[in-house]
This record gives sequence, structure tokens and C-alpha cells, in this order.
Amino acid sequence: MKLLLINPNTSLPMTRSIAEAASAVAAPGTEIVARCPTFGPVSIEGHLDDAFGAAGVAEQAMVAAREGFDATVIACFGDPGLDAAREALPGPVLGIAEAAFRAASIVATGFSVVTTMTRTCVIAERLVSRYGCESTCRGIHGTDIEVLSLESCDEATLARIEAASRVALARDRSEAIVLGCAGMAALCEELQRRLDVPVIDGLAVAVKLAEALSALRLRTAKRGDYAPPLSKRWTGWAAGFGRDVTA
Amino acid sequence: MKLLLINPNTSLPMTRSIAEAASAVAAPGTEIVARCPTFGPVSIEGHLDDAFGAAGVAEQAMVAAREGFDATVIACFGDPGLDAAREALPGPVLGIAEAAFRAASIVATGFSVVTTMTRTCVIAERLVSRYGCESTCRGIHGTDIEVLSLESCDEATLARIEAASRVALARDRSEAIVLGCAGMAALCEELQRRLDVPVIDGLAVAVKLAEALSALRLRTAKRGDYAPPLSKRWTGWAAGFGRDVTA
Amino acid sequence: MKLLLINPNTSLPMTRSIAEAASAVAAPGTEIVARCPTFGPVSIEGHLDDAFGAAGVAEQAMVAAREGFDATVIACFGDPGLDAAREALPGPVLGIAEAAFRAASIVATGFSVVTTMTRTCVIAERLVSRYGCESTCRGIHGTDIEVLSLESCDEATLARIEAASRVALARDRSEAIVLGCAGMAALCEELQRRLDVPVIDGLAVAVKLAEALSALRLRTAKRGDYAPPLSKRWTGWAAGFGRDVTA
Amino acid sequence: MKLLLINPNTSLPMTRSIAEAASAVAAPGTEIVARCPTFGPVSIEGHLDDAFGAAGVAEQAMVAAREGFDATVIACFGDPGLDAAREALPGPVLGIAEAAFRAASIVATGFSVVTTMTRTCVIAERLVSRYGCESTCRGIHGTDIEVLSLESCDEATLARIEAASRVALARDRSEAIVLGCAGMAALCEELQRRLDVPVIDGLAVAVKLAEALSALRLRTAKRGDYAPPLSKRWTGWAAGFGRDVTA
Amino acid sequence: MKLLLINPNTSLPMTRSIAEAASAVAAPGTEIVARCPTFGPVSIEGHLDDAFGAAGVAEQAMVAAREGFDATVIACFGDPGLDAAREALPGPVLGIAEAAFRAASIVATGFSVVTTMTRTCVIAERLVSRYGCESTCRGIHGTDIEVLSLESCDEATLARIEAASRVALARDRSEAIVLGCAGMAALCEELQRRLDVPVIDGLAVAVKLAEALSALRLRTAKRGDYAPPLSKRWTGWAAGFGRDVTA
Amino acid sequence: MKLLLINPNTSLPMTRSIAEAASAVAAPGTEIVARCPTFGPVSIEGHLDDAFGAAGVAEQAMVAAREGFDATVIACFGDPGLDAAREALPGPVLGIAEAAFRAASIVATGFSVVTTMTRTCVIAERLVSRYGCESTCRGIHGTDIEVLSLESCDEATLARIEAASRVALARDRSEAIVLGCAGMAALCEELQRRLDVPVIDGLAVAVKLAEALSALRLRTAKRGDYAPPLSKRWTGWAAGFGRDVTA
Repeated sequence: MKLLLINPNTSLPMTRSIAEAASAVAAPGTEIVARCPTFGPVSIEGHLDDAFGAAGVAEQAMVAAREGFDATVIACFGDPGLDAAREALPGPVLGIAEAAFRAASIVATGFSVVTTMTRTCVIAERLVSRYGCESTCRGIHGTDIEVLSLESCDEATLARIEAASRVALARDRSEAIVLGCAGMAALCEELQRRLDVPVIDGLAVAVKLAEALSALRLRTAKRGDYAPPLSKRWTGWAAGFGRDVTA
Repeated sequence: MKLLLINPNTSLPMTRSIAEAASAVAAPGTEIVARCPTFGPVSIEGHLDDAFGAAGVAEQAMVAAREGFDATVIACFGDPGLDAAREALPGPVLGIAEAAFRAASIVATGFSVVTTMTRTCVIAERLVSRYGCESTCRGIHGTDIEVLSLESCDEATLARIEAASRVALARDRSEAIVLGCAGMAALCEELQRRLDVPVIDGLAVAVKLAEALSALRLRTAKRGDYAPPLSKRWTGWAAGFGRDVTA
Repeated sequence: MKLLLINPNTSLPMTRSIAEAASAVAAPGTEIVARCPTFGPVSIEGHLDDAFGAAGVAEQAMVAAREGFDATVIACFGDPGLDAAREALPGPVLGIAEAAFRAASIVATGFSVVTTMTRTCVIAERLVSRYGCESTCRGIHGTDIEVLSLESCDEATLARIEAASRVALARDRSEAIVLGCAGMAALCEELQRRLDVPVIDGLAVAVKLAEALSALRLRTAKRGDYAPPLSKRWTGWAAGFGRDVTA
Repeated sequence: MKLLLINPNTSLPMTRSIAEAASAVAAPGTEIVARCPTFGPVSIEGHLDDAFGAAGVAEQAMVAAREGFDATVIACFGDPGLDAAREALPGPVLGIAEAAFRAASIVATGFSVVTTMTRTCVIAERLVSRYGCESTCRGIHGTDIEVLSLESCDEATLARIEAASRVALARDRSEAIVLGCAGMAALCEELQRRLDVPVIDGLAVAVKLAEALSALRLRTAKRGDYAPPLSKRWTGWAAGFGRDVTA
Repeated sequence: MKLLLINPNTSLPMTRSIAEAASAVAAPGTEIVARCPTFGPVSIEGHLDDAFGAAGVAEQAMVAAREGFDATVIACFGDPGLDAAREALPGPVLGIAEAAFRAASIVATGFSVVTTMTRTCVIAERLVSRYGCESTCRGIHGTDIEVLSLESCDEATLARIEAASRVALARDRSEAIVLGCAGMAALCEELQRRLDVPVIDGLAVAVKLAEALSALRLRTAKRGDYAPPLSKRWTGWAAGFGRDVTA
Repeated sequence: MKLLLINPNTSLPMTRSIAEAASAVAAPGTEIVARCPTFGPVSIEGHLDDAFGAAGVAEQAMVAAREGFDATVIACFGDPGLDAAREALPGPVLGIAEAAFRAASIVATGFSVVTTMTRTCVIAERLVSRYGCESTCRGIHGTDIEVLSLESCDEATLARIEAASRVALARDRSEAIVLGCAGMAALCEELQRRLDVPVIDGLAVAVKLAEALSALRLRTAKRGDYAPPLSKRWTGWAAGFGRDVTA
């Protein structure tokens, strides 16, 4: 299968790291194509970043709409542009927060999220509500680690995430940790070894779910809310999109 | 006061109509500046449009951040880019769906939304959930009228909206109608006359709420979730934004 | 416009203070008439007080029903008698808790309530639920300051409210404070200066919302739940009301 | 045991009928004292009536506070004044809606409410929410029968209630009927015979629950929210209450 | 009346203790028959135990279906097999958690549960959700006391439960304690004396509710979800049940 | 990987059919072992059946606990015994309702369930609540087709399911169908062809999710709620289990 991996953060090194992490868990027959938007902030750490990240995902989804991808993964924990990508693309689209929440609720009755900037906690809270995890997600914990600093993750950073995880497990009476950033994928295995509870990297789960849905030939419903976008005029630098969409 | 009115739809005629509707209800001392994004679809009628509309609102909010606006209104019923604009701007920011829901729940125990394309109903449903209106919003009704066709609204269009409203009032046991599109502002008065229940145009309510909060000098909390965006590098056509944001 | 301000607490000094606070934020053309019930407890600090306060509001609403008020504000944080007043009066009726919650959720993603007696917290909790603010109201904090002691508010009282607010902001991860008593209106400005977050006095917001709805000529729906009261016999000291209601 | 039955409706014939219905199900050792407020509307059929009914219940609760009642039942489906009576009285206080909902959820997975005026449905809806019955109460159906007309209930009235019940059972996929008015108590048995599903009269259930809690010596918690009312000055015709409350 | 008491724990001494506790609160005319399943774990302290306890309750319900019991009580706080027993039996069936929650919400606005093994808290949490007590149950506290150790309850055990209750009352701002195990029935009175708040033993409440519903001749709805089980073949050691069920 | 497939229905032909359907979607390296309980009803079509099915799943989970299965799927739409199996087994355990709901909410914004007996709808409703799908599951539709009749599914049966699906899609405004019985697996492809919307067979999804989680080495958290069962005495025909569990 051919899997499109969209990193809403426009950092190329981060996009490459994420592509490697995704490849490490992909099945032999899975070809991964990783892209990031042509515009926007290098990292998504707030509402403004998120709005641009979502449009960037939408842009990449429109560009890829006729390239025959079997499935798509959006590699940013806020799942920006998820609905737009589902509307634009025929194959299934997975957000890594949604994927992580689903896996966590299968292996534990309650989980905690350990994420980057505290100011993004409210974004995670709304995803918890959207995905119906109010009773399974028992806490969201910011560490105020910047997203891009995860590109070269050292022991000090790992130790901060470990410490936040231990506080979360104790305070929330939870039994699993969800990593709240695609950039944390590389830490997952070591963290799980240290904490001795399931530590869930949504990127890995999303890749495997994409493979699973693709194998079952389950595709996005094209009746109703996710029907192909209506044909209309687009303006400014996006003037070319109107044609793409309706092709 | 100086009020910024952002129309996420990039149609200039629609932006002008909305500005006129806003001016019609504004207080004498209110100066309205209406703008639309420099890019994106001419009308917002789905998730893909919405993602671009949100980024367009974010763009206009960043551009306006140092222009001294007292308050901002986002003139599209999906309230796209609301959080981004609240993050970027110091003054209060109002979405017209939020404003309409608030007014409706003051004048009635239950209301129905009558909107444009049926495929946007799920967007309204999520706003109902975000704004905590699950028990007051008793139904959302699509009419499949295109947003831009509202620019030159004739009796046939009005009759369709009236018919949908009558069905909604009867079926939902509701007592007020919320108009689900900024483009319907011009119909509000006539519709209220015909239906004899409160008919709420969120644009008008948002303008008055913006004046009210501005008079009380209530501004967006700049601690936590809506703190000013972090300084970082932006790429592509948005490369200039990084500087703007951190200014 | 002509604004009726009903103070459910039957303390005349408090009613005068509230009228002054309301006048301080009212627009030039707004005439404020402040009244309190002819019977009941001098202050509302529990369920029993609240039941009488609600009937007192209902009494004043019936008395005022034909006096041509454009809008009404109920100046007690429990919003007692809100539905009764909406039923009795043609113009819009605002509770100060509802008004405060609405304003708070526009300027912040989460707020805390700081109120008087701890025993009234459950009343505030139910309003949070009624108004759909379960995810935006992050905590309700009693200070055990008596309502009437707020009439002559000194630095010690202010310091207690400030301290409770600081605890609330830290513990609830909230970004704004809602004052849980109409009697706290006079402290709002100083408290906001000290805390450097939005501090919201529901009384002020309610007055401005009343002006806003009145300017838009939005009135209470008189179909269904808020239809005028049915004509019937009343007994005891309230025997005169039957006629009033149906007049 | 000594049971206080407060009818918030000030109709004496209705109070007598309710007392008889309660006596018919009471245990041999239960002494029932039925009272109604000294003021207020003869029947509770809307928000304004409800506000006065609640104050009337509060009045009767204060009057009875030192008379040694073992338990109290409030005989009106909106449960007006429930919290006030719990605050004023030492023994347990039951509302008939709460009692009916509890019994219904024991004998069925889903029930429908059939009530009097359609305009009171929203009051029932809020009780459904307060008592956590959103998933067990599958519908609320008004019949627009006036409360007082139930005093002399004929076959035509019974037939209307039966018809509404049949519609409810079919449309709501429910398995039991809750009667939404204390005045319907006399119809319960015949209706159950005709419909062949459990038909629940909250008055009867409340009397038996009162006996049950009384036998277990479970009394209202007097710590926190239901602590005895604070001593304070009362004004107007209620001036005498301050003393009563604090005795 | 004839009351069936099913103890899902297969410990005979515990079954006898529970029968005694139930008899102590039963009315003179109530005959109590206490039974436990013929198979399964001696105590219910986790999901696996709970699954067998539920089947054990179902077994005893089928066996008893034609013995003419007026009502049934399931004496284990997880209410295992509640729906199965309601399906199998004509008379009302009460779980002790449901009964305790109902009584607690009548005598207090908020309660805390103090239970045995911490690992069973999630089972209690789901009951809180099923019974709609999310806003009244303010906390669930494990003590890690084993169920069977309650059979010979000494001062040390009582002291641990008392300590946990004091923590719960303070931390949860609650006003009543619900005992989270049928085996704690004997401690109820002494604990209430020490804590001076209502302490609720679900077993006692369930017995009195069973008597109450039985007196009112309210029986389980046999239309829809609780209709008698379908006739079908059963296998293995349960091969005899098919006949029983359909008799 | 080695996958345990437990069919809670004790019908051997049905167990074989389910094994075949699972094998048809399994990856080349997946070895499927299908078992059913040694006791209980041949089909699960109500609460009593469900209680036995859950114990049967628990039995098979205990038996299999030391056989080294990598993951387990419970092949009955009510997900009976899910928590018990998660407690007993080290590898991840998936219910087919949970799996189906997860897949459906990825490919559509709203789905409808089409199931067998109407009396099982309430079981599905509770799963919808447990899995947080209240806003994505838009309806549950019984067809009153018996589970075992699906073993030899003819055109008439298919036509009934198709008809119910068409009604569901229209009435619920939904965009995907979830099949509410493992026995419907064989119809999935043909139904999807006829309806032209995603039709989701939870069995197939659960098998692929089991493979996915297994590939990621995600296993059930063994801290807290799903810790291995406590060692204790078991009685009756289950007397042997105590040893098994604690081995």
C-alpha cells in the first residue's frame, strides 16, 4: 500500500524524523511518502499555528487527491485538518491523537497524555471531547518542552518526560501514557521500559491502523459530510485550488 | 470603538454586504472595518473550505494585531479561526455562531438552526457541543441553498428558508430560529415578521456583544491558552508572519 | 431604553449599591429602575433563601409586566426566578451568572468562580450545568464571606477574595475570574488590576447584554415555554396576582 | 411514622385528593399530614407558578421544621422547593418526580413521561437532567390537560392520557409510563391495566420511599449544602420567618 | 412478602452475614431467602470475578424464576447480573449500588464511595455513569481491604474505613458516605456515629426499596428489553437451563 | 502472530463460520485459534445470554492465559466479558463492537448500527455510551432476525438487512453502517456493494486491529484495573479456576 504522511509542522528535519519513525513500524509492503505544507510555522504549538497547520494539511491533501494514496496519516497531535483531508481524499485519513486514544483505551481503562507546551493542553482537551474519551483520558500534562527541541532529544529531555509521566500515573490513577507529540516517537520504547506501563506513540498506531483499514478496503464515506468539496472559485495564492478540488 | 469584521469567505461583494448589515446595527460611535483573507475559497461550505477560512482569519488577525482594534467579529457561522484570532489579538473576538447561540438561549428555552448546505450541519453540531448548547439547540436544518446565492436573495430563497423554519419549529418543539449563515442577515427582519418568533442573526448579535465587551474593557486573557503566539520561523508564502506575530 | 434591575436580596442598601454599579456601566440613554421584592430574606445564601428570592423576582416581574421595561436584569448570582421572569415579561431577562459565564467563555478558554458562602457552591454548580459550561468553568471556590458584609467592603475582604482567586487560577489552570455575587461589583476593577487576568462582574455584563438585545429588538419568545402565564386563581397574600398576570 | 405531605398547588380539594391517594398506599403505622402553602396559584402549570410553588413549599417546610415530622413528600411533579425543604427540615424530603424516575429505572430500561400542559415539558426535561436520567427517560409528552381538571377525572380525560401513553410507548421505544402530575394518581391502576406496562405514580412511590428511608433512620445531611439556613432578617409578610429558621 | 437475596460471592459465611444484616432491617412480614451461586469465586474483587458473579446471579435468578418471589436483591456492590436477573424474574430486582446511590442523592447533594480493593474503583465508576450520578458522586476511594476480611471485622479495619471516609469528605466536598461492599453492612451504624454524616449501606436500602416496590405491586416491565429470555439450546454444565428459562 | 478468537455463542457451526470470516481477512502470518465456551446458550440475544456469554469468555480467557496468544478477539457484538478477558490475558483483547465503532468513526462523521433482535438494542446503546460514541452513533436498528438464522443466510435475510440499512441511512442522516452481529460478516461485502456506503464488520476490523497492536507490541496494562486476578478459592464446577488464575 501507498501511505501519505503529512507533517503539519513545516520543519523538514522533523518531517524526515517522522518518516523514519513511521517506516520503522510499517509493514514490508507499505510505501511511505512524507510531506509537509509549502507554507506555515515550523512547529505547531498553539491555536494560530494550528489554524495554519490545518490549512497546510488541506493543501497537501488536495495536491495528493489524484495520486492514488491508499491512506493518509496526519502527524501532529492536534489532528489539524483531519476533516478537510477526509473530505479531499478518497482513502481513510487518521490523526495521531485519535489513533493514540483508541489504542490506549484498548490496553487500559484510563490513560494520561504527556505533551509539549502547556498552552496546547486545551487543544488536547477538545480532542478528548470530540473523540468521546472524557472518562478514559484522566489527565493532560504539559511539560513546556518546545516541539523542535525534540528533534535532537537528549537524556535531560527524556528525564523531564519521564518525570511528568510518573506524576501523571500517580495523580490520575491512570495505567498508560499517551505521548502528545509526533516528535516524541523516538522516545517511546525507552520510556515504556522505564515506566513499565504501555506508552503509546500515536504515529506508530496511526500507521498500523492505516494499513489495517487499507487491507479491509474501508474508505471514507463519500455521501454527506465528507463528500468531495464543492467546485468554486479560490483566490490569492490559493487560486489554483478550485480546479484541483473538482477534478 | 474600532471593530474589525473578518469575513472568512473571500467574496468581496459578500464582504461588502456583511459590512453593511453590521453597520446597520452598530452604535453611532462604532467604526467598522471589514476585510476578508487574501487567499482561499470564495465561500465556506465544507471542511476543506473551513480549514482555509480559519487560516485566512488567522492571517487577517495577525495583520491587524497592531492596528489597535477594540474588538473583532468573525462573520461565518462555523466560527473558523476563532481560537487563532483570540490568540493573535488583544481585544475580544466573537464568532457569529457563538453569539447567536448565546442570544437564542436568553430569549428561548430551545432554538433551531436553519442553515445553507446540509453537509455543513456536522460543523454546526460540533459548535453546539463546544458551546455547551446540547440541550438548548433542538435541531439543525440544512436547506442546500448555496452561500453565494444569498448575495442576491429573492422571494424564492426566502420562502425556502421560511418553510425550513416552520418545519423546524414544529418538529423540534423550538421557539426561536438561529440563521446559520452570515449571508442571511438581510432576511432576518422579514423572516421574524412572518414567523412571529425571535429570528436571530448572529452577525448583528456579535456586533452588539463586541460593543458591550469593549465598553466594559474586557479583553482576551493573555495568560495560558490565548497567550501571544510563540516566536518562530514561518515558511513559504507565509514566511513574513513569524516577525509579525512576535512584534 | 428602560431597564428593570431586580435585586432578589431584600436589603435596600444593597439594592442601592447594585443600582449604582449598574448605572456606572450603562449607556447614556439607559434609564435604570432598581427594585427588590416586598418580602423575603435580606440576603440569598442558601436554597431556602433562593426559593424566596425566586418568588420575589417573580412578584416584581408581575408587578412590572405592564410598565414597558425594555429589558430586565436579575442581580443575584444564583439567577433566581429567571424562568418566571422570562414568562412574565415581554422583554429579554438576564441573570448575572449566565451573563458572567458567557463573557468569561469569550475572553478565556477556562474560568474559575470565586463566590461567598461555600454552601452556595452547589447552586453555582447547577447553573454551570444548566448553561452548558461544564468544560469552561474549571472550579467554584467559596470564601465564606457573608453577602451583606460586602456592602462595606474593606481591604481585608478584598484580600480574602484576591487570595482565593490566586489559588483558583493556579489550581484550576484557569485564565479568568468570575465574581460569584452581585455585591462584589465594586471590587472588580481593583481585583483585575492586582490579578492581571480578566475579572468578570456579571452585573456589568448583564446590563450591557440587556442594552445589546434591546437595541436589536430581540424579545423573549412568547410561543411555548415562556408564553404568558395561564389565568388562574391565586390565594393568600398573593391573591391579587391572578388578575395581574392575565391582564 | 409521621409524614408531611406538601401540595405546592394551593387548591384545597386537590390537597385532599392527594392526601387520600397517599393514605391508600401508606403503611398502617404511617400518619399523613397534608398541607398546602398559605399563598400562591391554585395550580402549578408554568415557571411563574413553579417559583411561587417553591416558595410555598419553603414556607410550609419552615413552619413544620420543629413539629417532628419523620419525612416529607412534595406532591407536585416539578419538585418545586425540594432543596429549600431539605435545607429547612431534618428528615428526608422526596419529590414525586425524583421518586417516579427512580422507580421507573428499576422496572424498565427506558420510560416515557406523560404530563399535563405541554409548556411544562421543559421543567420535566431539566429534572431529567438534574436526576441523571438522560438515557433512561426516552420522551416527555404533554397532553394539554389542565391540572385542576384532573380533580374530577372522567373517561374522556383518561382516554386522552391513555392515547398519549400509547403514542409514547411506540415512538420512544419505552417500556413504562411515568405520570407527570400528582393529580393523576387516581388513574394509575386503571391505566396500567389498559396498557399492560408499569405505570408509575410518583406520589405513591415517594410515600413508600419516605417510609423506607425513615425506617432506616436516614436523614438529610446537615453538613454543607443542606446545613440549617443561616439566621438573618426577613422582610415584608415573611418577616416572621427569620426567627423560625434559626430556632 | 418473599424476598430473594442473591449474594454473587460464593462464600457461605458471607451469605449468612448478609442475610442477617438484611433481616435486621426487613419489615415483620418480609421473609428473606438468601442464596449464592453454585459456582464461582468466593469473593468479587475484579472484572473476572464480576463476570462469574453475574453468571452466578443469572443462574440463581433462573432457578428462582418460578418460586414466586416478590422481589430480589443482588448483594454485591458491582450489581453483577442485574439486567439478567431483571430479564429472568417477574418481580423487581435491585442492585445495592443502585439503591445506595439513590438514597445518597436524596439525603445529600454529593456523596463519596468508600470501597474495598482500589482495582474495583473502575467498576464503581461505570455504575456511577450508568445510573446518571456523575454530578452527585464526587469521589470513589479504595481502601485495599479484601472483601472476605470484612467477615470478621475488627477495630483496625473499621479505623481504616473511617480514615478513608474522613479523607473523602474533606477532599470531595461531599456530605454522605456510600459503603462500597455488602460486607460492610455491619459497620454502618458505628461509622455514622463517628462521622456524623449519613453513611449508606446499599443492602439495607435495597431491602427497603424492594419492600416498597412490592407493596406498590410494581413489577419489571415484560415488554422489550426485559421480556422473558428467548427459548434456545444451552450447552455444557448449563445444558439444563434452556428448559428452565422457557418454562 | 497467534490470535485467539472467542465466540461467546456456544454454537460450533457459528464458531467455525466466524473463524473462516476472520481467516479471510487475516495477514499471512496470523494463526487463528477459534474457541467457544464449554457452557451456556448457543446464541447471545439478551441480558441473560449475555451474562453467561461473559462468563464463558472469562472461562476461555483463563484457560488460554498461559498458551502464549499474542492477542484475543471476542466475536459477539455486545463485547461480553471484555474486561474479564483483559484482566486474565497479557496480550491486547478486542471486542468487535468497539472495533467497529472505531473504524466507523474514522471513515464517517456518523454511523448507524443494524443488528439482530430489537431487544438487544439497549445493550448496544450502553456500549455506545461506554465507548464515547454518543455523537457519532446516530441510531441503532433491530431487525428481529435471530442470530442462528444467520448461519445459512439467504437473499431474504440479506434483503431485510439491506432494507433496515436504507431506512437507517435516511432517517439518521448517517453515512456508514455497522453490522451488529458477528454472524453478519459474510454479508458485508455484498451489502456495501448495494448500499454504496462503508459497511463495517467488527470482526474483520478487530482481527486487523489485533494484528496492528500485536505488531507494535502493545499489551494490556497490568497495573491497576487490569492487573492479574487475585488468588482466591473458586467453588462448584469452577473450582479448578482459582489455581489457573494465579499460576
